[in-house]
Amino acid sequence: MTQPETLTNAAPAGAPVPFAEIWRGPFLESVHMGHAVVCDTQGEIVMAWGDPHAVVLPRSSSKMLQGLPLIESGAADAAGLTDAQLALACASHQGAAIHTSRVAAWLEHLGKSESDLRCGVQPAADVPEAERLIRAGESACQLHNNCSGKHAGFLTLNAHLGGGSEYVEADHPVQKAALEAFEDLTGADSYGYAIDGCSAPNHATTVHGMARAMAYFAGAKTGSNTRQNAAARLRDAICAYPELVAGEGRACTELMRAMDGRVAIKTGAEAYYVAILPEKGLGVALKVVDGSTRGAECAIAAILVKLGVLDANHPATRKRMNAPIRNWRGIETGILRPAAALA
Amino acid sequence: MTQPETLTNAAPAGAPVPFAEIWRGPFLESVHMGHAVVCDTQGEIVMAWGDPHAVVLPRSSSKMLQGLPLIESGAADAAGLTDAQLALACASHQGAAIHTSRVAAWLEHLGKSESDLRCGVQPAADVPEAERLIRAGESACQLHNNCSGKHAGFLTLNAHLGGGSEYVEADHPVQKAALEAFEDLTGADSYGYAIDGCSAPNHATTVHGMARAMAYFAGAKTGSNTRQNAAARLRDAICAYPELVAGEGRACTELMRAMDGRVAIKTGAEAYYVAILPEKGLGVALKVVDGSTRGAECAIAAILVKLGVLDANHPATRKRMNAPIRNWRGIETGILRPAAALA
Repeated sequence: MTQPETLTNAAPAGAPVPFAEIWRGPFLESVHMGHAVVCDTQGEIVMAWGDPHAVVLPRSSSKMLQGLPLIESGAADAAGLTDAQLALACASHQGAAIHTSRVAAWLEHLGKSESDLRCGVQPAADVPEAERLIRAGESACQLHNNCSGKHAGFLTLNAHLGGGSEYVEADHPVQKAALEAFEDLTGADSYGYAIDGCSAPNHATTVHGMARAMAYFAGAKTGSNTRQNAAARLRDAICAYPELVAGEGRACTELMRAMDGRVAIKTGAEAYYVAILPEKGLGVALKVVDGSTRGAECAIAAILVKLGVLDANHPATRKRMNAPIRNWRGIETGILRPAAALA
Repeated sequence: MTQPETLTNAAPAGAPVPFAEIWRGPFLESVHMGHAVVCDTQGEIVMAWGDPHAVVLPRSSSKMLQGLPLIESGAADAAGLTDAQLALACASHQGAAIHTSRVAAWLEHLGKSESDLRCGVQPAADVPEAERLIRAGESACQLHNNCSGKHAGFLTLNAHLGGGSEYVEADHPVQKAALEAFEDLTGADSYGYAIDGCSAPNHATTVHGMARAMAYFAGAKTGSNTRQNAAARLRDAICAYPELVAGEGRACTELMRAMDGRVAIKTGAEAYYVAILPEKGLGVALKVVDGSTRGAECAIAAILVKLGVLDANHPATRKRMNAPIRNWRGIETGILRPAAALA
């Protein structure tokens, strides 16, 4: 790939550029830097900041890619999965009752149980559920893990493929199928993998590679071929169930609602973010290099505003960009805002 | 001040340098950059990384400076304050019972109550206390605010000075006294202020200015003069009560214990950190520019190891630098480690 003429990066080649700024009174107190790419369905870069070739682990921003074999294999239809379940398979949910109850029912339908999951126990991030557990003297379980829906999807695919119980091992048929989809849509061999928080392999690619994959989802049309059918179905499921993909109060859920289901977005740990814009035929990927959530949320909101799909004045947007910072007495002490390159 | 010959910064002048790295498998996943200065009691820079002249809000790393007038004015002695109370006056505590009960008793002794505080209500960060509140159906109050000890100190000084109730206003005698101490020890006029999380003014200075102030605390000798007496007493109080300055599990508390009370350290919001090394006659100040706590903790631990006052292999050190990152199943997936400049 040649360096695109539209590259808007005035910093040294390869250097991340400022994405988000935290001001307190007259002082720039903190800054978040990153790389981002907007890509079209031809795989060409439309806009970029920082280094499009930076190789990064997309973490949970890979979930749509990892979910494709579930549909393509016929496993989803064989198990009668609903679109709500497909959205959960791509979720980093916060372990609220709406998430855990659906995953529990899904596992039961499969003839499996919580102990068949290999994602590990994560405390509930959902405040009402976390407080319920404390009051009831109960402990969190694997259902509360933000990836339990993805793992229910892995178990569904595994039942179809007839693989062994350790479905998170890199050479397991479930993970091989996920890798094949990942490499196909990112347009390159994996740069290798690391073990994710949920114990599944997480494959690395360039920011451009991920934006290209998201653009594939943006352009996918039902009726074209098996892969496009699967991509379109997953994309539309995410757009239809924003509350299942993350949860109340979370950026993915609130920003997707603000865009009326016309754009799918998905965060990943350590400040990754992707977006799928079907009407524009565009995919977006970004990484804030310090791993900060507030930086990634501000950056994706700013890019979605720039691309004309998110209202800058919507409350969900204002919460992430140009958000007043208030102290414990409610006094406005500063602002979180996009840096010049994204403003 | 002339640019010191010992400046170890190979990056462009003014640019922050890498302080801490997050690796996952073979990938450098995230990086934290910053500025740091080690200063001697003459105010000269001994070591520096990034830009010593970067102007930053030290946030709660200012608390020792804000606490000086409490002692110098005679207010602390008039109120019969103990060293434990002086440590609390410099604390960013986590609202555990050991903190809230002491602040409540202190206020009662002053003839004041929780409603006289102007720090605002902050949820308890201490897990046992937060869970107790949930089980009891109680709400957090201003005593849980991490700055409630500092504010009890402000109220004590205010009772002595006879100022009005709004002691956090910038032109209030309590804040004017804090500013005078801040400017004297940082060696420069304040660069201005912003409103802190606890509503008190927080004055800005260079990283060098803060390191210089910390070196003053390092060199302060009892019996010299009023300001040195006060600085030595505050410093020694912090070293004597590490659990009151932060709390169980917290970096300030655990690292001070690991150094057997020979070094005082104090974090500030948005990734500030300072250290006072009396035996070495050195002060340290650092800022991680993205505001990340894990970055600042790794950097201060690495600098304290480099200065020979912290054991690199102590469990409290290993938790912040060269810390294995484990996932929800306990699998080691990566490491948090100092970048080359601090390693």
